[in-house]
Amino acid sequence: MEYSKALKHCWETRWVAGINKRTENSLANESSVHKVVIIGSGPSGWTAAIYAARANLDPVVYVGVAKQDPGPVLPGGQLMLTTDVENYPGFPEGIAGPEMMMKFEEQARRFGTNVVGEDITKCEFSKDGSPHTLHTSGGETIQAHAVIISTGATANWIGLDSEMKLAMGGGGVSACAVCDGALPMFRDQHVAVVGGGDSAMEEATFLTKFASKVSVIHRRDALRASKVMQERFLAKDNAEVIWNSGVIDCLSTPDSFGNEKIHAIKLKDTVTGEESELAIKGLFVAIGHKPATKFLEGSGLEFDDAGYIDLKDRSSKTNFEGVFAAGDVADSTYRQAITASGMGCAAALDAEHWLASKDLI
Amino acid sequence: MEYSKALKHCWETRWVAGINKRTENSLANESSVHKVVIIGSGPSGWTAAIYAARANLDPVVYVGVAKQDPGPVLPGGQLMLTTDVENYPGFPEGIAGPEMMMKFEEQARRFGTNVVGEDITKCEFSKDGSPHTLHTSGGETIQAHAVIISTGATANWIGLDSEMKLAMGGGGVSACAVCDGALPMFRDQHVAVVGGGDSAMEEATFLTKFASKVSVIHRRDALRASKVMQERFLAKDNAEVIWNSGVIDCLSTPDSFGNEKIHAIKLKDTVTGEESELAIKGLFVAIGHKPATKFLEGSGLEFDDAGYIDLKDRSSKTNFEGVFAAGDVADSTYRQAITASGMGCAAALDAEHWLASKDLI
Repeated sequence: MEYSKALKHCWETRWVAGINKRTENSLANESSVHKVVIIGSGPSGWTAAIYAARANLDPVVYVGVAKQDPGPVLPGGQLMLTTDVENYPGFPEGIAGPEMMMKFEEQARRFGTNVVGEDITKCEFSKDGSPHTLHTSGGETIQAHAVIISTGATANWIGLDSEMKLAMGGGGVSACAVCDGALPMFRDQHVAVVGGGDSAMEEATFLTKFASKVSVIHRRDALRASKVMQERFLAKDNAEVIWNSGVIDCLSTPDSFGNEKIHAIKLKDTVTGEESELAIKGLFVAIGHKPATKFLEGSGLEFDDAGYIDLKDRSSKTNFEGVFAAGDVADSTYRQAITASGMGCAAALDAEHWLASKDLI
Repeated sequence: MEYSKALKHCWETRWVAGINKRTENSLANESSVHKVVIIGSGPSGWTAAIYAARANLDPVVYVGVAKQDPGPVLPGGQLMLTTDVENYPGFPEGIAGPEMMMKFEEQARRFGTNVVGEDITKCEFSKDGSPHTLHTSGGETIQAHAVIISTGATANWIGLDSEMKLAMGGGGVSACAVCDGALPMFRDQHVAVVGGGDSAMEEATFLTKFASKVSVIHRRDALRASKVMQERFLAKDNAEVIWNSGVIDCLSTPDSFGNEKIHAIKLKDTVTGEESELAIKGLFVAIGHKPATKFLEGSGLEFDDAGYIDLKDRSSKTNFEGVFAAGDVADSTYRQAITASGMGCAAALDAEHWLASKDLI
């Protein structure tokens, strides 16, 4: 299925409709306690569901609403913004992000996963071994012995309409150089990176391997990145920094298929106010990520210094018994579909193990 | 591609031939130091290769030879013994293990991975930052700045010809209940589990959810498993233990496609010597796993108490700089294709990060 069709199917028809119209199969009125509730519908959530469903745990997935900042809500996770996934193992020819998420969902449903087109808005985790209580965006209250949190993280964006439109349409705007930097559309092209921290430098340095030229756009006259990271980038022949500049618009033209592709960015000098244009074929926004944890405020769940869910050792266990986390909400390091999926599997196996140890299954 | 064809292609033609005939593209005579050498060709090795190749690190994969104990050498990993993989996310209809590994390999090759049909027999890891030295089964010596160890683990088997033939042919013999227990062929059937430890009890308890009856076959009159694990299994209505018994043969009949399927096991009483038959539709061998680490003896690499490679925190880092590990060789807990793949990705990203930090790329 081509990208735009898959996107339309997932984004407009199924999930957004589900969220607006309330649940497709409301489960709140059942008096029973769920064995496993999974919050979030990216790679980690669906993988947890596949494993939990195959283990006969009757998992319920709340698809969640990851709010891009700024940008739209995004059930299905960041892959809904990815045209071509080339690095998820098993698809040698690549696969569109939304199509991949549809396959994950189909697989989870095949083994008996219940899918609810709502979000969890508040969690009351239990300390005494009684079930955990979750509040849904539909105003209902549900209970679960085990909870798997896989709400992901969202990239921070500049906040331009043109930027978001191109990011969602595969138009050459991305928030992940590792994911997208090696795509043919960016090879031997001039690309720009917005940001000034260590990870912006890392992404920019990564891109120098593929692009003909990499311009880092920074609002001030000094970078926040460590000296060694700056030097590593600037040592490359095809690296430059454009100082005191902000991106105020993305300019695009349709390709031969009628899809808009970026061809330039409009810059504004933050000191003089002067405006200019820079011709580029790719824009990488590298101004940080935020884990989707707002609904966990006040729950007592422990986070690391960067605000990601803190996991015990190499497991998916949190500081609450029966509460597990997986994917980007608990991983600020790797943040790939395949690593998130692996974590989702681990969370389901940990949850099953825990339920068995408490004689709850 | 159907299973037997894929198996034939991978197993007989490409890899085993490659190992016997020496390298398909020998790299030892190049004087340069490799950026990344990956040892092993299961899900973790190929995923590491996909990521390393896309990051322009020119990875070289030594496909390795995981020796089943007893059983054949098994390049491609344990999935080469798996007929239907239903739980690797992205394939809602399931996929044959060997076909899946072919897709992984194709994807790694597509981005420029070099594949060598040999094994690494000995490692000399460097402490002073100079390249690591590896010895190949072809008698060559190569050097690499970064090494990713992904040689996997192998199940222990009873050691019967009939057992191994059925395990490799999808005939109802498996060493992984979590992977295969939920397959339709075992639903509402009588199955047997060989073993007596905690993990055998766990696998047997897991199987009670699907099978009509689960018989644990044990050689002695007491199990090694903890009391709580035994009780959890024996509390199930469809659980039994057959004491003082060893499996001495697997009996099979061809199904309508001509594929041999197990229909009974031959038991021998370890006290009286009496022989008997037990009609079953599945045999799960749960007598442990061994990580494939023999070639690392004397290298100074650190292992955990169970003999698996010890990793730092949640990363893929070992006690040697520039040496990383991924997959079952470093994971005695989850041991799934998807978790191994996630670890392979992490190892490639860690390796790239490390190479960049040393200005080696």
